Amino acid sequence: MWLYGLHAVSAALANPVRRLRRLLLTAEAAAALAAYHRPPWPLAAEQVERGRLDHLLGRDTVHQGAALLADLLATPALAQALDRPGPVLMLDQVSDPRNVGAILRSAQAFGAAAVIVQERNAPEETGALAKAASGALEAVPLLRAVNLARTLVALKAAGCWVVGLDAGGAALSGPALAGRRVVLVLGSEGDGLRRLTRDTCDEVVGIAMPGAGGGLDSLNVSAAAAVALYELSRPA
Amino acid sequence: MWLYGLHAVSAALANPVRRLRRLLLTAEAAAALAAYHRPPWPLAAEQVERGRLDHLLGRDTVHQGAALLADLLATPALAQALDRPGPVLMLDQVSDPRNVGAILRSAQAFGAAAVIVQERNAPEETGALAKAASGALEAVPLLRAVNLARTLVALKAAGCWVVGLDAGGAALSGPALAGRRVVLVLGSEGDGLRRLTRDTCDEVVGIAMPGAGGGLDSLNVSAAAAVALYELSRPA
Repeated sequence: MWLYGLHAVSAALANPVRRLRRLLLTAEAAAALAAYHRPPWPLAAEQVERGRLDHLLGRDTVHQGAALLADLLATPALAQALDRPGPVLMLDQVSDPRNVGAILRSAQAFGAAAVIVQERNAPEETGALAKAASGALEAVPLLRAVNLARTLVALKAAGCWVVGLDAGGAALSGPALAGRRVVLVLGSEGDGLRRLTRDTCDEVVGIAMPGAGGGLDSLNVSAAAAVALYELSRPA
Repeated sequence: MWLYGLHAVSAALANPVRRLRRLLLTAEAAAALAAYHRPPWPLAAEQVERGRLDHLLGRDTVHQGAALLADLLATPALAQALDRPGPVLMLDQVSDPRNVGAILRSAQAFGAAAVIVQERNAPEETGALAKAASGALEAVPLLRAVNLARTLVALKAAGCWVVGLDAGGAALSGPALAGRRVVLVLGSEGDGLRRLTRDTCDEVVGIAMPGAGGGLDSLNVSAAAAVALYELSRPA
């Protein structure tokens, strides 16, 4: 896969478990990258013109002059991900790679243990996802589950408390969940949680929202994820 | 301008002050739109094939079969926007129309009075912005200021308390600001607040973030805006 963008490339260069193949940089990007991540880099850069990257990645791609060909990261096992502290985020039917990337980034900022997506309905670990994650793809485990409801059952068996986020209901409260290992489940913007996913949750809550509308579809799914993670981690 | 996407088109149809010119819908979109916004609509729809919209708006545009040609909304005066309750959001150098759109959407959800962008550096009120705003462009005034620092001085003269959001410093606290009319200023992801903007703030705060990194650039700017608006409006 091609990673691109200065943050995504810099974070991948700094990740000792990421297998790197080729690094293409414009002269300008090489200088900028050296400021993020001091050379020597684990592989030699090939200097290229901007036009070559436009051609390689597509004209509309904001590559910032940096592209890195790298292998996919190995997906960790669920138990391994749970060794990390913090809440677990599960995304049910969230399909836009930019949303998944932005959510990974918030997951890193707010200290989440892992993000779980569905194998079939989630976007490939594309460059667009990595770019939106701005380096967080190297830091936060992204797990792919074949069956989300079954994974929720496994998480409950491991002692987690499963909180679905949807329109209405009581408002999510971090202090009320203090001391619990929380799994936060977010559905797609249009449809919310699917019935099976919803039925597996220990509780379903909303986000306190004074504005008109009030439903969870009033927020972009990555904004909803950021607010929910913030609420779970904020000082009481 | 062409608006597209079911939510954006539906909200514009329902906005009595929006001047509408042409409505193009696929048969499928016409049925879906009727569910959002019951006919009769203020203008007759022209039924089109999906391919015509792809051609009109670009192949990569997620138009959902709905496009509406409409005039730009008149920009309200600052004093008029302040008649609305809630905090005011100011975006300094935020250039991605999807980010501005998503921030407008969060502004509506969390009851903000208005969003102010800089005349020169902000994206045009494009279809992409309106699509990301998912109808919020019709509800939340989007103001364009020639000089942001001067606008902040005017807001302070009108009794507002100007809070800049940046890395480090004390954490933003809604309860600590209760009773104040707050203007929240967000900078670009890379550079943060510009010096002149920063110097005009009454205080500069960060977002409480336990994760690695910790700087405000750990979050996408629209995630940061959502969290900050949530913190200002959340129940204490």
